[in-house]
Amino acid sequence: MPTHALKIGLIGAGRIGRLHAEHLTSRIPSADVIMVADPFEEAARSCAERCGIPSYQRDYRAVLEHPEVQALVICSSTDTHAQIIAEAAQVGKHIFCEKPIALELASIDHALAAVKRSGVKLQIGFNRRFDANYRRVRQAVEQGEIGQSLVLHIVSRDPAPPPIEYIRHSGGIFLDMMIHDFDMARYLIGSEIEEVFAQANVISDPAIAAVGDAENAIVTLRFTNDIIGTISNSRHAVYGYDQRVELLGSAGAISTENNYSNTAIISDAHSVRRDLPLHFFLERYTESFIAEMTAFVDAILNDKPVPVNGHDGRMAVIIALAAHRSLVENRPVRLSEIEQ
Amino acid sequence: MPTHALKIGLIGAGRIGRLHAEHLTSRIPSADVIMVADPFEEAARSCAERCGIPSYQRDYRAVLEHPEVQALVICSSTDTHAQIIAEAAQVGKHIFCEKPIALELASIDHALAAVKRSGVKLQIGFNRRFDANYRRVRQAVEQGEIGQSLVLHIVSRDPAPPPIEYIRHSGGIFLDMMIHDFDMARYLIGSEIEEVFAQANVISDPAIAAVGDAENAIVTLRFTNDIIGTISNSRHAVYGYDQRVELLGSAGAISTENNYSNTAIISDAHSVRRDLPLHFFLERYTESFIAEMTAFVDAILNDKPVPVNGHDGRMAVIIALAAHRSLVENRPVRLSEIEQ
Amino acid sequence: MPTHALKIGLIGAGRIGRLHAEHLTSRIPSADVIMVADPFEEAARSCAERCGIPSYQRDYRAVLEHPEVQALVICSSTDTHAQIIAEAAQVGKHIFCEKPIALELASIDHALAAVKRSGVKLQIGFNRRFDANYRRVRQAVEQGEIGQSLVLHIVSRDPAPPPIEYIRHSGGIFLDMMIHDFDMARYLIGSEIEEVFAQANVISDPAIAAVGDAENAIVTLRFTNDIIGTISNSRHAVYGYDQRVELLGSAGAISTENNYSNTAIISDAHSVRRDLPLHFFLERYTESFIAEMTAFVDAILNDKPVPVNGHDGRMAVIIALAAHRSLVENRPVRLSEIEQ
Amino acid sequence: MPTHALKIGLIGAGRIGRLHAEHLTSRIPSADVIMVADPFEEAARSCAERCGIPSYQRDYRAVLEHPEVQALVICSSTDTHAQIIAEAAQVGKHIFCEKPIALELASIDHALAAVKRSGVKLQIGFNRRFDANYRRVRQAVEQGEIGQSLVLHIVSRDPAPPPIEYIRHSGGIFLDMMIHDFDMARYLIGSEIEEVFAQANVISDPAIAAVGDAENAIVTLRFTNDIIGTISNSRHAVYGYDQRVELLGSAGAISTENNYSNTAIISDAHSVRRDLPLHFFLERYTESFIAEMTAFVDAILNDKPVPVNGHDGRMAVIIALAAHRSLVENRPVRLSEIEQ
Repeated sequence: MPTHALKIGLIGAGRIGRLHAEHLTSRIPSADVIMVADPFEEAARSCAERCGIPSYQRDYRAVLEHPEVQALVICSSTDTHAQIIAEAAQVGKHIFCEKPIALELASIDHALAAVKRSGVKLQIGFNRRFDANYRRVRQAVEQGEIGQSLVLHIVSRDPAPPPIEYIRHSGGIFLDMMIHDFDMARYLIGSEIEEVFAQANVISDPAIAAVGDAENAIVTLRFTNDIIGTISNSRHAVYGYDQRVELLGSAGAISTENNYSNTAIISDAHSVRRDLPLHFFLERYTESFIAEMTAFVDAILNDKPVPVNGHDGRMAVIIALAAHRSLVENRPVRLSEIEQ
Repeated sequence: MPTHALKIGLIGAGRIGRLHAEHLTSRIPSADVIMVADPFEEAARSCAERCGIPSYQRDYRAVLEHPEVQALVICSSTDTHAQIIAEAAQVGKHIFCEKPIALELASIDHALAAVKRSGVKLQIGFNRRFDANYRRVRQAVEQGEIGQSLVLHIVSRDPAPPPIEYIRHSGGIFLDMMIHDFDMARYLIGSEIEEVFAQANVISDPAIAAVGDAENAIVTLRFTNDIIGTISNSRHAVYGYDQRVELLGSAGAISTENNYSNTAIISDAHSVRRDLPLHFFLERYTESFIAEMTAFVDAILNDKPVPVNGHDGRMAVIIALAAHRSLVENRPVRLSEIEQ
Repeated sequence: MPTHALKIGLIGAGRIGRLHAEHLTSRIPSADVIMVADPFEEAARSCAERCGIPSYQRDYRAVLEHPEVQALVICSSTDTHAQIIAEAAQVGKHIFCEKPIALELASIDHALAAVKRSGVKLQIGFNRRFDANYRRVRQAVEQGEIGQSLVLHIVSRDPAPPPIEYIRHSGGIFLDMMIHDFDMARYLIGSEIEEVFAQANVISDPAIAAVGDAENAIVTLRFTNDIIGTISNSRHAVYGYDQRVELLGSAGAISTENNYSNTAIISDAHSVRRDLPLHFFLERYTESFIAEMTAFVDAILNDKPVPVNGHDGRMAVIIALAAHRSLVENRPVRLSEIEQ
Repeated sequence: MPTHALKIGLIGAGRIGRLHAEHLTSRIPSADVIMVADPFEEAARSCAERCGIPSYQRDYRAVLEHPEVQALVICSSTDTHAQIIAEAAQVGKHIFCEKPIALELASIDHALAAVKRSGVKLQIGFNRRFDANYRRVRQAVEQGEIGQSLVLHIVSRDPAPPPIEYIRHSGGIFLDMMIHDFDMARYLIGSEIEEVFAQANVISDPAIAAVGDAENAIVTLRFTNDIIGTISNSRHAVYGYDQRVELLGSAGAISTENNYSNTAIISDAHSVRRDLPLHFFLERYTESFIAEMTAFVDAILNDKPVPVNGHDGRMAVIIALAAHRSLVENRPVRLSEIEQ
């Protein structure tokens, strides 16, 4: 471990927490995870053991109070994010927090105010910005390869719905799933969204309707600079994780395809076929998770701006809330309605 | 020419009229074009000469009154379609009419009533239904290859805008261009659309805004059976004619790609590239134009139902009118609002 | 029919003869087939009826002697080609002849000498030169898009072997099947082949071995200018007609893919797949058959050089004979060994 | 580091040695590199420092004699491989050795005899066997997805020739470059090669001819079970590392494509294009290098057979020597001629 490695405390040892723990300890030499906390003591313990983290605790405050911890990685449940951010900012720890910051705007604003007062860095976990495909699209926009942006389309589908109990408490498809795509839209276009219109349905999985959520959803976007676009989500793509964007510009278009575990094509008497795309986010976005964490560690060690900040985290939630209201009221909703 | 060939009179010898004339005379042995009419006598004359049509006239009524003409192919300007359909029905001629039937619902209903009274066959020129790619999608839906349909996306872009004078009188992007996609949506899904929401912009070509039309437009669709979807149009795809659909179903998805003049891939020191897709509708949809006309001739000679009827032509216009109203009023519009 | 149309006599009304008859009568306005001959009178009659050819005969000499016939299209059995070419040249008819001219060099040279003496035009039926994919490769070579040519690979596979009786009398895989690829190699590279080495096997279809032919064959090529390459044939590609080339050059590479009846991709729980490629040569090379015949008619009507001449036909046979000798003797064989 | 980690000594800290050092120390937790040796002391020192290896030496014998070292990873120059293997076997160390074992058969046999006597494990560095694309092809063969194998084609091209001094001492294109493909052919087919025929040229880079080597080479293969195939190598593919195979079987075919850093497609007014494939072996085969070393460590720790053994290393050299003789003598050469 380099002597100048960033000393990190991890809060939350669930699926995503363990993922970050593994990357931070085995793939990012400039990071040093020195403590992990989880209310499930067994989760904290096994994560510590597996990743060689020297200390674990049940209470996240132990991490906050640890004098050597320089930065937190917050992977606890969503309802705790804003509170932990605020407390961490007060004790001067830098913060990486998984999305979303919170499901209500007031909590987000409270947390961001604390961050602003303290001057610590806060990065939000929109990992897809670090994916090579989307980076290439953003690069094309920045370098003018396709001229002025005109129309954006994002498709983002999960291979199967999560457990119905998860959906029930997830905040709904816009806050739980499409929030990544709202951030992606802002990232790719580089300007703000002004108004959204949402449509949704439940056809093949009635249990999702029973808990008040959508199986499939489409949101139409209007950006402040008149660019328009759509985001199409589904919880039900039996062929796997479907993650694509396409952007039409005045001088051309750029689109991305799914990623696959191999390039082999089999032609037999029935069809010309290949294996399914990488199954889900753990397989598809591994490198982007490592890259986002590397960028966070680098931003702190070298005092750079974080690549995804609190404003980004806040805007994605605002768009999701606007989309939800649009769906309920069946009308286009301006983001300004939510912000007031 | 087989003795039982269908005797056809062509009305309108503009671009699309000449196209049909060529196909009918050289590619469809069971058709016999015996007269062509166009108010521009020179257009009628040169079309007749080029295609070996024995007679030409300025006045379309000469075609209507020709005793041997069994069927009309109407390719005159849109504002004449409904009137000619009505007159043709009264004299018992079968009718193929280019889309749209008319830009106002009252005219359409008047024409369709005449058709109904007379019992002649009326086919509307939604040629894309006969394209092999879309046929394959429809086949997948019908044969259950992708289960229940959930979400539909259609992309349809022209390589460049038509002349601004054309746009000024075109009826707008929904009636002029997206009307094909409205029909495609109904065809692929096999059910009716209930409500639409439209967005549009003009960014790279301000002249289009000056005549009150859109450069790019997106319409969100809700079908009566809860399927949702989008149609994305652009008049400005510099890389050529971009014509694709994708349909997500409960057991899989199906998508189509553009067609190309060759399959060659060149890899050099800069990129891996291929030539642009087929440039525009004449190249892209040649076979579908032949197939639609073959189907029309077959429907009459063998007394079968036409594959695209007056109801289809009427619905596409209603959807376009609803989309237009949605754009003007910035709200979702139900088709029932237009039909009353 | 234009009054200046080329008057053609067709000799041979088998599969390929009927194909050309159909194209000449329905797709090539500048051609006028006025007589067809086939020893099977019924074949000649039904071809004439189907394509509207005014006269048919059993004896090909009736075509040769017809005073109005300007050009012959020879689609009779291979063993008659050289003789008919010689006779036709003597009576001053231009000639299109299906490949191969003959299976022995002496016959070819006799026929070509007669052609040379008479000054008539002779085109050989290597239709693949007129295919859009290969044209694009040739264009890349001519325009220097990939620099100097270095290495060529051709893959050419049939969906299934022909009947074993056909194989028995076909002259073997090199003269019957790979001959197209030998011509393609010369066409794409634009220089002569100097030496070949052949390998072959029979694995899945022992009946082919029983008649002394190969199921799969590979020939290595060396051109006079040091370019090297391979041709890979198989009679047994269960997925359909597999027709591809790739050419490496000093500034890049170009490769072609198979052609398909539609572009639809289906993703389901098992694979991402598309329908099989166009099944066989009738589907795959339709446009190239029309283009070759159009070029033949054009060459005569406008007194241009034919695009595939007797030398081309002769060289393809020489290469095939060299490949056959290489296989029998298991050593590289120079073309000069065959020509002596 | 797990307490049971395999203690490894690394011999050779050049490009490939440093690559393995990095993977062994950061990506393979069950390995523990405890010493590195290189005659260039500075190379050994910087490798040790960079990867946290506790000890470094100039003399490889220090590694051989280190009592705790259980296994060697030999990445020294080719001419030292056989000697070090023999010495290592004598002192009972397990061995991973980069390809080729040696350029002469006698040296290889001497080394393999020592290995056999001692009973240590020896794995040869044919990393491509661990690549996901080729694994998928092998899996298709093993599971019968394409029936019986009939014809194999391998294309393997480098983005640019190595320095001419490297080529001069490399042993030639067959031993230096195509050796990977000879192993791949044996791996994919699962049987031995019986006879080869080689062709080669130098066209765009005369300096390669000046040192007696080839710029492009093609080898035709005949396997003992009659399967035939080709390998096509080029040192001059300006578009990058081109690594593909295709295998025709009696029930279908399987082929692989190159790998890319992203999936983005850009369509502009000139072409539809993507970025170049992964540039060279370090980018293209990263995961396969990690997988081969993981397999080696696993084979020793868990006493399994190594996946690529001394026989595999020996056969690849024999095939390369046969190909070389074939090229020199312009005739097919049986492997049995080399083995005697």
